[in-house]
Amino acid sequence: MMQRYFAKSKKNNQFILNDNDLYHINTVMRMKPNDKMEIVFDHQLFLCSLNDSKDAVYIIEELEHINTKMPEVTLIMPLLKEQKMDLIFQKGTELGVTKFIPLIMERSIIKLDDKKSIKKLERWQSICKEASEQSKRIDIPAIENIKTINDLKNLEGLNIICSTSKNINNIKYCLKNNMGYDRINIVIGPEGGIAPKEEEKLISFGFTPISLGNRIMRVETVPMAILSIINYEYME
Amino acid sequence: MMQRYFAKSKKNNQFILNDNDLYHINTVMRMKPNDKMEIVFDHQLFLCSLNDSKDAVYIIEELEHINTKMPEVTLIMPLLKEQKMDLIFQKGTELGVTKFIPLIMERSIIKLDDKKSIKKLERWQSICKEASEQSKRIDIPAIENIKTINDLKNLEGLNIICSTSKNINNIKYCLKNNMGYDRINIVIGPEGGIAPKEEEKLISFGFTPISLGNRIMRVETVPMAILSIINYEYME
Repeated sequence: MMQRYFAKSKKNNQFILNDNDLYHINTVMRMKPNDKMEIVFDHQLFLCSLNDSKDAVYIIEELEHINTKMPEVTLIMPLLKEQKMDLIFQKGTELGVTKFIPLIMERSIIKLDDKKSIKKLERWQSICKEASEQSKRIDIPAIENIKTINDLKNLEGLNIICSTSKNINNIKYCLKNNMGYDRINIVIGPEGGIAPKEEEKLISFGFTPISLGNRIMRVETVPMAILSIINYEYME
Repeated sequence: MMQRYFAKSKKNNQFILNDNDLYHINTVMRMKPNDKMEIVFDHQLFLCSLNDSKDAVYIIEELEHINTKMPEVTLIMPLLKEQKMDLIFQKGTELGVTKFIPLIMERSIIKLDDKKSIKKLERWQSICKEASEQSKRIDIPAIENIKTINDLKNLEGLNIICSTSKNINNIKYCLKNNMGYDRINIVIGPEGGIAPKEEEKLISFGFTPISLGNRIMRVETVPMAILSIINYEYME
């Protein structure tokens, strides 16, 4: 299978890559000048070749643009322990998340100061970039700065909360009755669940609490399940 | 939330637990005599209390049996690197797998001798047990001994292969046209995919290759996606 990389910038008919990718191309893959690879830039896919000085790639031809009728999915998640958080970014990217929003939530045990946040954000971005390349996505999910519940006031689209409340509709009922949205925004809670006050506030912002059925899942399993379900519901 | 454990055996109105669980009860949870917990034994759920000598639990009452109309799902998977394999056992258990069958496949890079196999099996069983407790399942998935493709000849139920072949039906078409099975057997392939000869043999055994759509997923993501989809399709 051909290697795929995301270009940093374009200069005439050449793409500039970042240092990690150049290292991968030259040292890990041991590519030679004229070896072919796929490059994604500005939502387009190109067939490219390594140049003679092995520090950039030039365009051979533009390949097809991959279209999809899937809605854009924003995953809004609490701050979690590093391993769980990393797994959500990786699997979320594979399963088609368009945008991640890390959210400060009452029952989350992880607190980050500004300095740590910046480092984390870099880590998450690199996980998403790598997962995008591996899964041949034509875009990399965006990661917004860490937000609070009050920032979720005016989100356009279908807004849902993966809730553990009783007597709520399940995801199947919700999706079957709400097809045709361009965007779905999903909030998942931390280990202890979303605090009732937070859920009330989200409901006042237009979010609908839904259940994923009778199974009890770990926090990091919830996004994998709901993203797989959305892919399935929109499958043709 | 009340702790839940699986009992090893029953003696009159008391349950005998294994040493790890007793350690968890006494040292991690620091329970005192008469503290309550839930015990699962022989597919039934009991409310129990720790006895005075703190080495067994006695039955207070039998609680409801949890019923489900879900089909039984057997996940047949290649030998993978430890971290990926562990994740599949954990998430597969959360998402409802009834039975796991580790399978020797041509393109799997992991080989196990008999001695290592026994150790691995113990490790996998302990992961499934813990995940069953966490997700409040009333049973622990069975793990069969490592098998070869030829052992998959006479499996009853809906038999599917998560395939990367072209021009095959997707999982949605397959499930919509095959509801009402009591059992679904799913084969997933290793990193390099299922070898064509292996897929042909499985097809001759009555397996149907299906696709999970256009997304390219890592091996360990495939079972999470298909299990979430089956749960969704059978959700009421």
